[in-house]
Amino acid sequence: MARTFNIVCIPGDGIGVDITEAAVQVLTTLEKTFGTFNFKFDTLDWSSKKYRERGYYAPEGGIEALKKYDAIYFGAVGWPDVPDHISLWQMILPIRTTLNQYANVRPTRILPGTVSPLSGCAADPSALDWVIVRENSEGEYSGHGGVTPSSAHAAHTVATEVSIFTRAGIERIFRFAFETALTRPRKLLTMVTKSNAQRHGMVLWDAIFYEVAKEYEGRVKYDKMLVDAMTVRMVMRPQSLDTIVATNLHADILSDLAAALSGSIGIAPSSNLDPTREFPSMFEPIHGSAPDIAGQGIANPIGAFWSAAEMVRWLAGADGASNSEGIVQGGGVGNMVQAADCLMQAIANVTEKGVKTRDLGGQSGTKAVTDAVCEEIGN
Amino acid sequence: MARTFNIVCIPGDGIGVDITEAAVQVLTTLEKTFGTFNFKFDTLDWSSKKYRERGYYAPEGGIEALKKYDAIYFGAVGWPDVPDHISLWQMILPIRTTLNQYANVRPTRILPGTVSPLSGCAADPSALDWVIVRENSEGEYSGHGGVTPSSAHAAHTVATEVSIFTRAGIERIFRFAFETALTRPRKLLTMVTKSNAQRHGMVLWDAIFYEVAKEYEGRVKYDKMLVDAMTVRMVMRPQSLDTIVATNLHADILSDLAAALSGSIGIAPSSNLDPTREFPSMFEPIHGSAPDIAGQGIANPIGAFWSAAEMVRWLAGADGASNSEGIVQGGGVGNMVQAADCLMQAIANVTEKGVKTRDLGGQSGTKAVTDAVCEEIGN
Ligand SMILES: CC(C)[C@H](C(=O)O)[C@@H](O)C(=O)O
Ligand SMILES: CC(C)[C@H](C(=O)O)[C@@H](O)C(=O)O
Repeated sequence: MARTFNIVCIPGDGIGVDITEAAVQVLTTLEKTFGTFNFKFDTLDWSSKKYRERGYYAPEGGIEALKKYDAIYFGAVGWPDVPDHISLWQMILPIRTTLNQYANVRPTRILPGTVSPLSGCAADPSALDWVIVRENSEGEYSGHGGVTPSSAHAAHTVATEVSIFTRAGIERIFRFAFETALTRPRKLLTMVTKSNAQRHGMVLWDAIFYEVAKEYEGRVKYDKMLVDAMTVRMVMRPQSLDTIVATNLHADILSDLAAALSGSIGIAPSSNLDPTREFPSMFEPIHGSAPDIAGQGIANPIGAFWSAAEMVRWLAGADGASNSEGIVQGGGVGNMVQAADCLMQAIANVTEKGVKTRDLGGQSGTKAVTDAVCEEIGN
Repeated sequence: MARTFNIVCIPGDGIGVDITEAAVQVLTTLEKTFGTFNFKFDTLDWSSKKYRERGYYAPEGGIEALKKYDAIYFGAVGWPDVPDHISLWQMILPIRTTLNQYANVRPTRILPGTVSPLSGCAADPSALDWVIVRENSEGEYSGHGGVTPSSAHAAHTVATEVSIFTRAGIERIFRFAFETALTRPRKLLTMVTKSNAQRHGMVLWDAIFYEVAKEYEGRVKYDKMLVDAMTVRMVMRPQSLDTIVATNLHADILSDLAAALSGSIGIAPSSNLDPTREFPSMFEPIHGSAPDIAGQGIANPIGAFWSAAEMVRWLAGADGASNSEGIVQGGGVGNMVQAADCLMQAIANVTEKGVKTRDLGGQSGTKAVTDAVCEEIGN
């Protein structure tokens, strides 16, 4: 009997709406094609538009209520008439922390038929194949700090932003990253830090890395980079990197850079995982709401599809078929590993055929790319 | 009568030693060629080697004593056997803050005869022409924070890193950045922030930006980018950027990325300026000590020469010939603006002729490049 998964969609703002619709179409095609699993979709209207009407994004208790779902599919949030720190701190950031989604996984590679802006990778696309593991629960995103005096207009106003790193938080993300590296062909983990300039939290980060590394000695190779030098290595020696682990802010920056180097921010996926599987994980493309192209039917849905594929892969381990890091061996629940592979292959076939949105140098709209991917799934 | 400038050199570690020697050779050639200014060089042996011998980099009172010089020429610091946070917090970071060097200026462009790793810029090198203005005195480099319990081994260990932003510090760097933008052909300033995730200091940073922008309304165009999206813009639309202002950490990361995109971290210069001219400013290539190639005679001295040119340009304003941001009109003291231009032209001629180190795809060593630049200066 087919297993049913309850998915809650939060399309959010701008192109988040277009690409969530596209992702649902693709996921529905996938379930019909396989017939071994079902999705039941709910949709929440948490958005900047609603915020302006009623003064909140998520209603009281709304984020807690997400716990009853099997997974969350998120579009994008943010709109010019609401300050970003309001929209994000009312929705995406509290979801990540409340639901214990401490690992944000961001794979990057160059899809067939697309071109990297780096000449080296344009010539050899296989040179860029990375997974960035982002610490997603603490660090620079603690939200702690303040402004004194609060008016901000006094000549002596001072503001702080406090990064908080805990041993528990650091250990678990490193362990997750080493486990991820173990599943990769090259089994190389690069740890990113800025411990030369930040001498408290980042020095602790480094120390714990070498402790955890001992558990993987001989099984995973590892090295260490300063975040500034890491950007140079990504540009100059992409083939020297494989799995990467970094703090919340560093990985935020490096994953956008990675997406750009792979050809477009429009293709990049992300998974906000609770590796303990106590709470639902959340899947979202890494691009934002893109007000400049919203509602024009030209948004690239590939990042959304890739995120959907990651969701399917994660759900494949729902019945404990996965190891502690959620890495599933075999088909998992309802052949969902195969379904995820099928979706990734469909994406690759479509980009290879040149059915691409403008950001990838093509001329197709969101709908044409979506239909093409659905057709490939059926084939 | 020729004006004499007292320059203190701190070669530091690794290739810092090689490239400082090369810079002194070039500066000496420049003073002989022009005959209208003189350099008197002192050298300080503050290095990781000395640290291991005697337990300190700068001796007590050493940093204060730098105040008697007209400028500081810095090579690089850091060596594998001393933790980076020790070497940097004993030398480079306290120099920047003690001497009020609150503006770190990092120009980036593609030199003739060199190739950007971006295909777009390889085809049109003029597409990448940026000046990054880095806040150099506060923010993420405050040094505040700590680890509790200090042993770091307890299961509940917590560490913090505190970023501190002051109105005074923010205002002055924005003003400096707008003044810099005024001197640029395109007069466009892009402000970088992460105020969507960091809701205290970064929100203050944004608010003050728009206040200061009013003073330049109609004279400088400006826009705002989130730091993650900024990396995408640098890669995808380099021609859309001109002058950039960012926090201490953000600009640290972005300026390394900029250097890589321009062809090599080996060519990138930086000026640590005290725009009030109360204290000496410091000039250093942005590359580090590069232990892997130290002592082999193959380090690229171009970043060091470009930094030397920036020093000469800065000293041209020593007698108040400059405006408050140190931008000199005309020749300045002893025709030093012309001397700086002459050095930059010599660098460009040498790279154009293909006399380049390996990082730029050439086969020349440090000495060959240095001699070639000196010869060009004489021509
Ligand atoms: C929307 C924003 C808060 C977010 C982040 O900085 O984490 C985004 O840039 C991302 O990468 O997911
Ligand atoms: C050496 C280090 C402290 C320094 C910094 O982070 O400021 C360096 O990376 C730089 O860019 O000048």
